[in-house]
Amino acid sequence: MKALYHAIREAIHEGNLLHGEKMPSTRELAATYQISRGTVNQVYDMLTSQGYLHSQHGRGTFVAYQSEFNKEENTTQYSTQHLSAWGNRIEQLVQTTPQRHTQSTVTRLTSEALIDFSKYQPDLTKFPYDEWNNRLYAEVRHREHYSNTTYATVDSLGEPKLREAIAAYLRRMRGIQVDSNQIAVTAGSMQAIALLTQLIADPGDHVVTESPCYVGISQAVLATGAKLIEANLDGQGIVPQDWDARMLFVTPSRQFPTGEMLSLERRRTLLDWAHRHDALIVEDDYDSEFRYRGMHVEPLKTLDKDGRVIYIGSFTKTLPFEVRLGYVVLPPSLSDTFRKAQALYEPRPVNLLEQRALAAFMTSGQYERHLRRMNRLYSRKFHLLLKLLKQELSTWFDWVENEAGLHVFGWWKGDSSSYYTFRTLARTEGVIFSEVSTSTALSKKHGIYLSFAHLSDPELKEGVLRLRNATRSHV
Amino acid sequence: MKALYHAIREAIHEGNLLHGEKMPSTRELAATYQISRGTVNQVYDMLTSQGYLHSQHGRGTFVAYQSEFNKEENTTQYSTQHLSAWGNRIEQLVQTTPQRHTQSTVTRLTSEALIDFSKYQPDLTKFPYDEWNNRLYAEVRHREHYSNTTYATVDSLGEPKLREAIAAYLRRMRGIQVDSNQIAVTAGSMQAIALLTQLIADPGDHVVTESPCYVGISQAVLATGAKLIEANLDGQGIVPQDWDARMLFVTPSRQFPTGEMLSLERRRTLLDWAHRHDALIVEDDYDSEFRYRGMHVEPLKTLDKDGRVIYIGSFTKTLPFEVRLGYVVLPPSLSDTFRKAQALYEPRPVNLLEQRALAAFMTSGQYERHLRRMNRLYSRKFHLLLKLLKQELSTWFDWVENEAGLHVFGWWKGDSSSYYTFRTLARTEGVIFSEVSTSTALSKKHGIYLSFAHLSDPELKEGVLRLRNATRSHV
Repeated sequence: MKALYHAIREAIHEGNLLHGEKMPSTRELAATYQISRGTVNQVYDMLTSQGYLHSQHGRGTFVAYQSEFNKEENTTQYSTQHLSAWGNRIEQLVQTTPQRHTQSTVTRLTSEALIDFSKYQPDLTKFPYDEWNNRLYAEVRHREHYSNTTYATVDSLGEPKLREAIAAYLRRMRGIQVDSNQIAVTAGSMQAIALLTQLIADPGDHVVTESPCYVGISQAVLATGAKLIEANLDGQGIVPQDWDARMLFVTPSRQFPTGEMLSLERRRTLLDWAHRHDALIVEDDYDSEFRYRGMHVEPLKTLDKDGRVIYIGSFTKTLPFEVRLGYVVLPPSLSDTFRKAQALYEPRPVNLLEQRALAAFMTSGQYERHLRRMNRLYSRKFHLLLKLLKQELSTWFDWVENEAGLHVFGWWKGDSSSYYTFRTLARTEGVIFSEVSTSTALSKKHGIYLSFAHLSDPELKEGVLRLRNATRSHV
Repeated sequence: MKALYHAIREAIHEGNLLHGEKMPSTRELAATYQISRGTVNQVYDMLTSQGYLHSQHGRGTFVAYQSEFNKEENTTQYSTQHLSAWGNRIEQLVQTTPQRHTQSTVTRLTSEALIDFSKYQPDLTKFPYDEWNNRLYAEVRHREHYSNTTYATVDSLGEPKLREAIAAYLRRMRGIQVDSNQIAVTAGSMQAIALLTQLIADPGDHVVTESPCYVGISQAVLATGAKLIEANLDGQGIVPQDWDARMLFVTPSRQFPTGEMLSLERRRTLLDWAHRHDALIVEDDYDSEFRYRGMHVEPLKTLDKDGRVIYIGSFTKTLPFEVRLGYVVLPPSLSDTFRKAQALYEPRPVNLLEQRALAAFMTSGQYERHLRRMNRLYSRKFHLLLKLLKQELSTWFDWVENEAGLHVFGWWKGDSSSYYTFRTLARTEGVIFSEVSTSTALSKKHGIYLSFAHLSDPELKEGVLRLRNATRSHV
């Protein structure tokens, strides 16, 4: 085992294995060296933890380290030290994506055995593909008849019919009085988050985010060079303060990922804060489609009287994951500027075929019927999972009971070291999940969240069992 | 007529007609006021030239001016003075798009009568929609079978099969030795141009562009806050100098829009410049697919030994205009950073259905067969148009004879004032075209370019006749 370890490390140092190169599979290597796959896995794990390799779930293992030898050879090449300040920030950013980190450590398990709570996906086995595909077919068929003039009227904000359908949906389902010309269709919500941050925040400015929050939001803020103010949560969502900041990202309906719900009083306080500081609030209503008990919570946007709230929604939780469509409701003061910003990158709308299919899907009522069906299905899965979690895992976790959305969140009750032990054991059990941690001066708090929509009942049960087994050593 | 003019102007000043509001059609207004449509058109034209209105071809006329009265009313709203430096630059930028300017002045003509040389589009009447649609149908049909794992392997750089098909195309047709992992699929070439500029240029940096050049390039540079160095052309393309700059945008195969071709010697000089300044060259090979005489010109990229040339291509000239797909060939030093930059806005690829359909379309040979057919068709149209232009319009124009691409470029031989007269008359005749002007200390040079691919032979003939008529007053 040591021999293999040193051989690979040396090959990387010597530049015989190049940065980015794909490593042989453990099966191949085991066969070549006549050793067990377990041994190869151990070697790969060691080299991964030392930064020589990194593995990507479903893709294989790759060389992560660039040898000095190899770097020297490249000196005649264009040097990336000449990136812009923005480019340098981008370089730093995405390597810290937790997603990758999570996925890199489970290669020892075959994918069949894995229970993956970390995938944020709808249950596609219940998606009405026939209806949806027929809408797409119709758009493909009609496409050749689109005249130049028809296309000319579609600016970067998106297909007018879809923008109208979204406006109607928001008025009816979310109580937002909105006109379609305030709506921009985006390629998923990330495009909206990144463009808005770029439009508002200068390097050195302050931008408030919840802590924890969706990693894409903090990445977008850091990309602009602005400074993050990480606001605390206290069980009732974000704790308002008199921040000196230009903008605030918030998830009032169901804090991401903790699931906490923001009180009406706090919502008013946030709006008042924005007014006094002439700041903007970006409300990310990322999974408001699904609620399993009680009334749907009205978005913060419905309380917004002076155009300070930007509302973001997406279809990521309701349509197949390949349909990359989101939207943003813009205050009148920003809609023209946003259009220009979007048009700089994409002068014409992307995913236009899907935009048109979705417009028809929504207008016909198929979309809302689909939502209602999914709501029943997810409600059952949600309550099953929550019941199991409370039954089997209440000793070590506080589960947040906001009965909505596509994941369940729990705070770890122990300290960091016990959490890390749990996490390692969970991976050995063959279960993965998403996680967050928040730090205060004195301690670190850990939480995990489990996406359940894409898992079957037996998988949910098996997943909870494995999680419970992973807590065994603590008892 | 004066009454109507003052009535509208006052309504705008008083805030009774709001910024962005759509004006009644000339027909409606003529009926209401019992005056001729020609009079209403004249009033609209006056108000447009004064910045009160602007009209968009096919959409109508809109209020362009925001009254002080109205601005004051908005003080409780979020004020856009709080945009970031980037946001402010974006605000300035796009209003100067020449496209809009051109389109705003032809509303007096019905669209039937117009000959529009300004549309940069392929001849869609000859597009093999059956073959293409079948590829799309197949992708829609297969989509429901894609497993999560399949999707997980598609990162923001785009569908692996399409990246391989593009690499094969570039190796075979453009002589570029490229591996698919150097290729990023983009939503049209603008996304590549904007992201690359942002990655390299800081505010205050210098970026060289050709003068004239594609307006999207200068907009992308200005958006970063970098300064444009506008390089001269002299009939053989860009004139190399020892610029103090970080990057250069260049169109060596066929300068956009003048059509000038860059000599091998100058190409070497540019590469040498980039090496000495540790700068990057972005080669925009925007319509290299079509050549009507002589050898295809090899891209600058084929001479690039040390990873300083970034090559951009697109499918805008060969596929229906709704398919927004382009690509960029990245030097190894930039590919990871570019992926991260693209992923900030779009963590998952857009237009994925089309990406997969196009991969199959290319791999099967259908794409190149389509290119060959179009090359024959466009060759005929090109030679017809050039013959007519030289026959009818040689007194006033120098036509550039690089026999390739989808437009013909001509320099105006007269002074500015004669050019403006010509342009006004051309619009009255019902013909529009794209135009550029370059300024030196002493004089201004004007040029026009005529896109011909989407026009029929009779339209080409009629268009040239109208252009000739517009030069009549000069003779």
